Amino acid sequence: MSVVVTNPRRVARATAEAFAPYGVATVHEAQGRKGLLASYMRPVWPRARAVGTAVTVSIAPADNWMIHVAVEQCGEGDMLVVAPTSPSDAGYFGELLACSLAARGVVGLVIDAGCRDAAALAEMRFPVWSKAVSAQGTVKETLGSVNVPVVCAGQLVHPGDLVIADDDGVVVVRRAEAEAVLRASEAREKKEEATRARLKAGELGLDIYGMREALAKKGLRYADASNG
Amino acid sequence: MSVVVTNPRRVARATAEAFAPYGVATVHEAQGRKGLLASYMRPVWPRARAVGTAVTVSIAPADNWMIHVAVEQCGEGDMLVVAPTSPSDAGYFGELLACSLAARGVVGLVIDAGCRDAAALAEMRFPVWSKAVSAQGTVKETLGSVNVPVVCAGQLVHPGDLVIADDDGVVVVRRAEAEAVLRASEAREKKEEATRARLKAGELGLDIYGMREALAKKGLRYADASNG
Amino acid sequence: MSVVVTNPRRVARATAEAFAPYGVATVHEAQGRKGLLASYMRPVWPRARAVGTAVTVSIAPADNWMIHVAVEQCGEGDMLVVAPTSPSDAGYFGELLACSLAARGVVGLVIDAGCRDAAALAEMRFPVWSKAVSAQGTVKETLGSVNVPVVCAGQLVHPGDLVIADDDGVVVVRRAEAEAVLRASEAREKKEEATRARLKAGELGLDIYGMREALAKKGLRYADASNG
Amino acid sequence: MSVVVTNPRRVARATAEAFAPYGVATVHEAQGRKGLLASYMRPVWPRARAVGTAVTVSIAPADNWMIHVAVEQCGEGDMLVVAPTSPSDAGYFGELLACSLAARGVVGLVIDAGCRDAAALAEMRFPVWSKAVSAQGTVKETLGSVNVPVVCAGQLVHPGDLVIADDDGVVVVRRAEAEAVLRASEAREKKEEATRARLKAGELGLDIYGMREALAKKGLRYADASNG
Amino acid sequence: MSVVVTNPRRVARATAEAFAPYGVATVHEAQGRKGLLASYMRPVWPRARAVGTAVTVSIAPADNWMIHVAVEQCGEGDMLVVAPTSPSDAGYFGELLACSLAARGVVGLVIDAGCRDAAALAEMRFPVWSKAVSAQGTVKETLGSVNVPVVCAGQLVHPGDLVIADDDGVVVVRRAEAEAVLRASEAREKKEEATRARLKAGELGLDIYGMREALAKKGLRYADASNG
Amino acid sequence: MSVVVTNPRRVARATAEAFAPYGVATVHEAQGRKGLLASYMRPVWPRARAVGTAVTVSIAPADNWMIHVAVEQCGEGDMLVVAPTSPSDAGYFGELLACSLAARGVVGLVIDAGCRDAAALAEMRFPVWSKAVSAQGTVKETLGSVNVPVVCAGQLVHPGDLVIADDDGVVVVRRAEAEAVLRASEAREKKEEATRARLKAGELGLDIYGMREALAKKGLRYADASNG
Repeated sequence: MSVVVTNPRRVARATAEAFAPYGVATVHEAQGRKGLLASYMRPVWPRARAVGTAVTVSIAPADNWMIHVAVEQCGEGDMLVVAPTSPSDAGYFGELLACSLAARGVVGLVIDAGCRDAAALAEMRFPVWSKAVSAQGTVKETLGSVNVPVVCAGQLVHPGDLVIADDDGVVVVRRAEAEAVLRASEAREKKEEATRARLKAGELGLDIYGMREALAKKGLRYADASNG
Repeated sequence: MSVVVTNPRRVARATAEAFAPYGVATVHEAQGRKGLLASYMRPVWPRARAVGTAVTVSIAPADNWMIHVAVEQCGEGDMLVVAPTSPSDAGYFGELLACSLAARGVVGLVIDAGCRDAAALAEMRFPVWSKAVSAQGTVKETLGSVNVPVVCAGQLVHPGDLVIADDDGVVVVRRAEAEAVLRASEAREKKEEATRARLKAGELGLDIYGMREALAKKGLRYADASNG
Repeated sequence: MSVVVTNPRRVARATAEAFAPYGVATVHEAQGRKGLLASYMRPVWPRARAVGTAVTVSIAPADNWMIHVAVEQCGEGDMLVVAPTSPSDAGYFGELLACSLAARGVVGLVIDAGCRDAAALAEMRFPVWSKAVSAQGTVKETLGSVNVPVVCAGQLVHPGDLVIADDDGVVVVRRAEAEAVLRASEAREKKEEATRARLKAGELGLDIYGMREALAKKGLRYADASNG
Repeated sequence: MSVVVTNPRRVARATAEAFAPYGVATVHEAQGRKGLLASYMRPVWPRARAVGTAVTVSIAPADNWMIHVAVEQCGEGDMLVVAPTSPSDAGYFGELLACSLAARGVVGLVIDAGCRDAAALAEMRFPVWSKAVSAQGTVKETLGSVNVPVVCAGQLVHPGDLVIADDDGVVVVRRAEAEAVLRASEAREKKEEATRARLKAGELGLDIYGMREALAKKGLRYADASNG
Repeated sequence: MSVVVTNPRRVARATAEAFAPYGVATVHEAQGRKGLLASYMRPVWPRARAVGTAVTVSIAPADNWMIHVAVEQCGEGDMLVVAPTSPSDAGYFGELLACSLAARGVVGLVIDAGCRDAAALAEMRFPVWSKAVSAQGTVKETLGSVNVPVVCAGQLVHPGDLVIADDDGVVVVRRAEAEAVLRASEAREKKEEATRARLKAGELGLDIYGMREALAKKGLRYADASNG
Repeated sequence: MSVVVTNPRRVARATAEAFAPYGVATVHEAQGRKGLLASYMRPVWPRARAVGTAVTVSIAPADNWMIHVAVEQCGEGDMLVVAPTSPSDAGYFGELLACSLAARGVVGLVIDAGCRDAAALAEMRFPVWSKAVSAQGTVKETLGSVNVPVVCAGQLVHPGDLVIADDDGVVVVRRAEAEAVLRASEAREKKEEATRARLKAGELGLDIYGMREALAKKGLRYADASNG
């Protein structure tokens, strides 16, 4: 049942690169609040940020053999997405694999497990989002699959999907929806720009978003404590 | 049952500001080891520090409507304290709300749930203590209350109480006790200053605190391994 | 049953210092993937790194009395290793104890519990690996033991063992094995150096490690998606 | 700061006993979805159920001295509610204390920590809701308080409040609100009775609660897969 | 983006019923160790067991409106599978909904969140697998979808897939693979039957499975402690 | 580094059997509150109880090969104790292995990981204490060791040590200390017997243990609420 799928269709490079200005929160909202991986997926070093096309790996617990297989399937602009078949926080990935991926133009790693060599990853600025940091070594005994759909940290990821990751976590955008989500992200950002200026000037969200009537209708009331 | 209490009495500005030199650990000790929120409350960016008067929000899970309502109740020197009525790590709070609070002179946010836009919060130096960082959006459907007593991360917080937060977590000081706790913090800090100098000079806590006798009485004995 | 063992044999200073170039992941691999503490043990400030000989403390929950006792048993090049007898995330250790340890030449602390004064520890560059950061104070009522074997975060640590800690966690090396592990670490590092260069040049791990045949034998197959 | 408050006002016995038919979920709903302790509070043996007036204990971590003090303050129909000042899962409570409480007519224990002698508690049918089961012993060194307001598993409990616990968890009802909540529970139960019959007969909640219009207005649409 | 898909194709009744003798562990093995939901999914009452065809629900956190919508889509032999879009342990489901599902012949519920009325569910023998038991009520404000693919507790579930649940957890079998997995389960069970008899008779797995040679080849050695 | 140690010395059968009347809590206290495994180790079926001599297994994550090896080393009155080298909740152990162990007179299993076939284990009354129940299969690829000292759920266990487990968890008694701990358990039980009778008769622990003076000395005071 193990297979390596080669040459999956990917979101176009230009589209992926156009997502550069948009954060995870913006994209998640722009596509209707879906696609967000579990919040335990944290960047190994702060301020990391990456946008890439998913090369997916389904992998045995505490066994990183298939990551070595997957490297060959990765190219410029890809993001490696690794999901073990049962939970493990072992250190599947470290500096040597990062060197190898970086040499191929891979933009980052998303792994629902542990990684190691955290200091080296930070120094070489290779971004990793993981569930844990752990020096625990892994074996190379059991096959898995590359570029099949995987569930990673609670979200389905297909090979070629767009993956965006920053300090807020990781979001996946379906390949077929990438163009539409890009436009929705642009629109949302523009709207937020305007709102931001008004809020900084002291206007209230209550007024900008016109919430007062709905709140009153639901029965919100005010009581002045200084009258008490 | 939803209510917004306006103009609660607050710890005086001068008193709050006088706490500036004292860390969470010092204040917690100075008031008899009470008032500390659960240790899962962590600063979103390191070295954050804030002292402010609590504006409290009781809020539905995954629904941030009442935070918008609470903004209007916040002023110079306040700290927003948000507690959901059932556990959630959704991202209730982000950069736009931070802009709005900052515009009003609010000093920070304490939320027993998730926040998002972590990178932007760090850049604008708006301090947030939260249980999680998550891009997950929230809805605006259910009322809650503002400036009622809430339990936040295991501690009761009243509106107007003093909230102090730094890298060690978050501590709450009752409004009526703030003056006394301030003096106790000053006293403790002074005493620690002296102890610090002696410890740096190589004196032992065993001697400074006079512990040897009590230890011996409890039965502590020494065994030299080099005689083994 | 409480005892303070004085003058336990320790890994030689020269041996300990020779470990300076080798990270936790390297040493853990070099000694056959053993001795790694649980991955919840995290550095209080990033990029911390320390190598020292263990002074061990078995301690009651939420009671730090025995840390004060242990300080006297610590000397140049030691690492304090603290394990409570039942789980607690209270803040057993803070700046004053760090001053005292630093004055004696202690290189760091490993504690399967909480510590506090995180900002001060970072400023003074005293490295701590802990399960939690918490301002919660502890009492001084119950005896424990110093320099007895302890289980800390899932690993047995004997007094005088070598403890190495960095961003990847904490690993313990048995005293009797330190020399052999040092040589194995050197060998491993040298080998990785060569591999690193080849990977950076674009060679694949699949080829460098000669994995292709074993993978094929296990039944790995490739399917080209562009033929689909 | 330690105090034992004697003779706090309690919810009347008759009122407490009238809650017998109503489960935790019903009472929680009847009082507007408040007062529910965290869901990690689980019965030590299944099908346990108790309604009692709170005798509260604030207690040091891993120290059960104050439970012994609290026993004397307990009487017929009381429920002991114990909250440690910092988290611990030690076994503060076991069979002997249960014998002592049972002899005084106490109806159960709610403890945000561990208990032990689980098999004996089940045999003697003494109901306990706890965060953990653990044989870990505790010390008797540090004072706490009895019958002061405590935060237990995320909820504020005052002495004399009504506490109801069953397989669904634990809910607290304010003393002053007990009569009103009782009537609301009766009303809710009656209404559910009627609904239950209709649902068993095959009617749909969609129709009984008249949800279809609101769903359609929000934009819910139906798509028949067999036309696909 | 909310939709209710009606009449999805389902695994045939006869096929589903033929799975009755096979436990979750057997089926999971028989289909190549895939499809197992996270181990935190536990039966609300012990010895529960169910096999059914999935009706899936994607639902907002702490909002159970769509469960009411889903009931109408359920029929004889179905299993309701509910996944919130962000984590929540609120009590989305209780006795009344169970009555409604039971009246339609639904065999059970799998929910990656909380349920309530645990005692009543046990009494009426309606089986539920959930992440938590909690009396916490939910709202009816936000739309979701019914019979779309969902990720539930780490596994992708399509409407009409087969879901098998018992004391060991929950496993999903793809609709198209159900027949093949059934035959593989039968074969595995038969083989285990034979092995069971031999093991009970005192034969060793080492011999039955012929492991000794492979172990020796990997380097396993034996050392007699009584010679030490 | 993998080794199977055969014929380790064990606690004598008569001694082990004499522990039958004493629960985990009693033994843990009798030996000075040490040796208790982490409280997440729970019995797979309630009221399970076992006393046996440890056969220990150090095992790779998600790999149960060495359990098959260990079976041969087990005999009448042994308890299998399994610790993975990195955390995993996979189902290492199920009904077939239980049949094999039962056939050899083994009294139970303690595993710091998952087990499966929970219903079958309950039916055959084979007691298991584990961290998780999970159907997840494991591989047979990596060697480990049998009858070497292991850390299991936070406690060091040597082969031949005595292991006692019941509803309160699992405790280990050193081989050399078993006789002394047995006598201390007897003494403790006898003393508790007397106390139990007095408590049931309504005497208070405050008086039986003579705590009042110590409490007063520490400063405990009483305040009558009915005077307020």
